Amino acid sequence: MKRIDALKQRAFKEGKFDGFLIFNSANLTYLTGFSGASALLIPKNGENIVYVYGVNYEMAKAESKGLKVELIKRGENVMAKIAKQAAASEIKKLAVDALNIESWRALAKFLGGEKGLAADNGFIRELRKVKDEKEIELMRKAAELTSEGMRVAYETVAAGMREYEVAAEIEYAMRKQGSYGTAFETIVASGSCSAFPHGGCSDKKIREGDLVVVDVGATYKFYRSDMTRTFVAGKPSEKQKKLYQIVKKAQEKAFEAIKPNIKAKDVDAAARKIIADAGYGEYFVHNLGHGVGLEVHEPPTLSPDSKDTLAVGNVVTVEPGIYLVGYGGVRIEDTVLVQKSGAEKLTRGPYVLGKE
Amino acid sequence: MKRIDALKQRAFKEGKFDGFLIFNSANLTYLTGFSGASALLIPKNGENIVYVYGVNYEMAKAESKGLKVELIKRGENVMAKIAKQAAASEIKKLAVDALNIESWRALAKFLGGEKGLAADNGFIRELRKVKDEKEIELMRKAAELTSEGMRVAYETVAAGMREYEVAAEIEYAMRKQGSYGTAFETIVASGSCSAFPHGGCSDKKIREGDLVVVDVGATYKFYRSDMTRTFVAGKPSEKQKKLYQIVKKAQEKAFEAIKPNIKAKDVDAAARKIIADAGYGEYFVHNLGHGVGLEVHEPPTLSPDSKDTLAVGNVVTVEPGIYLVGYGGVRIEDTVLVQKSGAEKLTRGPYVLGKE
Repeated sequence: MKRIDALKQRAFKEGKFDGFLIFNSANLTYLTGFSGASALLIPKNGENIVYVYGVNYEMAKAESKGLKVELIKRGENVMAKIAKQAAASEIKKLAVDALNIESWRALAKFLGGEKGLAADNGFIRELRKVKDEKEIELMRKAAELTSEGMRVAYETVAAGMREYEVAAEIEYAMRKQGSYGTAFETIVASGSCSAFPHGGCSDKKIREGDLVVVDVGATYKFYRSDMTRTFVAGKPSEKQKKLYQIVKKAQEKAFEAIKPNIKAKDVDAAARKIIADAGYGEYFVHNLGHGVGLEVHEPPTLSPDSKDTLAVGNVVTVEPGIYLVGYGGVRIEDTVLVQKSGAEKLTRGPYVLGKE
Repeated sequence: MKRIDALKQRAFKEGKFDGFLIFNSANLTYLTGFSGASALLIPKNGENIVYVYGVNYEMAKAESKGLKVELIKRGENVMAKIAKQAAASEIKKLAVDALNIESWRALAKFLGGEKGLAADNGFIRELRKVKDEKEIELMRKAAELTSEGMRVAYETVAAGMREYEVAAEIEYAMRKQGSYGTAFETIVASGSCSAFPHGGCSDKKIREGDLVVVDVGATYKFYRSDMTRTFVAGKPSEKQKKLYQIVKKAQEKAFEAIKPNIKAKDVDAAARKIIADAGYGEYFVHNLGHGVGLEVHEPPTLSPDSKDTLAVGNVVTVEPGIYLVGYGGVRIEDTVLVQKSGAEKLTRGPYVLGKE
């Protein structure tokens, strides 16, 4: 309810809207505290109403606190139902967080036109950028589970193992410690595949001397974590060591740069400069990082063209990389919390390339 | 390319459109054969173009066959880029599969208005309803992995185990056999939680005599499977056995009803009647089933208000259930392929409630 109050205070303050309608599932979980709502209507005045289908109705009644739970009956038109309620709640201008064009038109039809509707995809995601204490607690736990998975990855990666077998051991370790599932599809990308940042995880056997990029995240009570290490199966070569040291240094520079009120693009630049100075600028083919929380990719964004400014309570990844097509790739990633004093790493674990 | 040809033949036949623009990620995987495209433009005449960000560019070049791969450069506006290409490809009426209202407006702006745009969310999902041989092969494998997971679930469920510990064993078994990950968040819901169809999976300990609903799916090369069994930790009571037999019979009646050209709602009715006749109609709170493929929920839908008619090559779940709040729930679910001769079960494994 504190979150809904915060939303109401900000959203209705300027008088642009007098109602908010939420459809995005991460936004719904953020505001209702459970998973399974189909929509949430927050009027400026009156009751907040969560809409659920029969399959989730009893769970919603058990888990949603301070919200009226409204069953969407079989054959009932959701948009018509919500439009009717919006009129009853005397909403004149309704902001909507996320709707595809067809649903938008359906809702507009029942509201008597588009005039009373406003699209606002960013508002709640903006609120979600700053994590509260409860969220940070859950993210610490997700990061702890992720670090445990990475410890197992370090122990498991070896020539002869198939990529999915490594993934199996990582995910099992996280699950056994209480993870609710993976935060995204685990990446174990070896050899030439490691040069693709989203190199997937196949039945390929890891070969002696391969670079192996392992990108993994646990979920704990809806909250996600994200972490990458690059290992070598066997003894690293001089070139592999060199690439690793450059990426490692780039990550350290980003950590040092992170503090409240710094522009996200400046953090990206701090890391990118190290890689560019080493001659690999064009091979760092993605952003430095992204926010993490209920979604594995959410604001703020650490990139050269980011408009974000970091603030206490942001949780972001820092993940520089170098990708050489036909050779392999190196990425090192941690999930960090922005504190008054700077970056606090939530994920931990080994900063090592090989096992020598 | 066969799939793109099929789309072109159907989409452009009537002359309503002369271009198709795809954003939905399952639709993109279906048409490009890989994961990582951001958009795909299919003009009536000329080259098909897949749009990717730098992070996926090299992988797209390696994996997308017969498509021109276009890099979205840093700072480039995707919608502007696509609109420009649409003009160059002489597209007068562009169908779009999925766009939120804000992106729709951006695209319309660059196209010079909404007139040249049409929203068509269902077209490609409609194509995807009938699986081709390649897809069926992958879905058989996903179902086989899922059945293996369920075999382990049967062995693992016991009083004293935590729900997530059971999930850990199931997922590990599937992964070790080659699963690419879970098709959805595994449900292990025990005791009163089993009365919530999406009861989740927590750190709760299973108690002696609990009903335990296990809903699980493996993914194999993008294709998903979906299967549920309900077990009792220990010796089932007479009431538990009775509920189980009703649900089992309902599922069997649905299997018998499935054949090409039958209305999906009639299959739902066949199962629903058994449960209603037994006096539990109001406790079967969801649809009988849904299509499965690249997404875990996709058309066709087996429900009382479905407009679908089944056809050879559809893959659907059949999952009747009874949910008694405060007591517990029973659901039995298999993924089946519609064949000329009727339903072929892709998921297998035990139809048993307890271990006696």
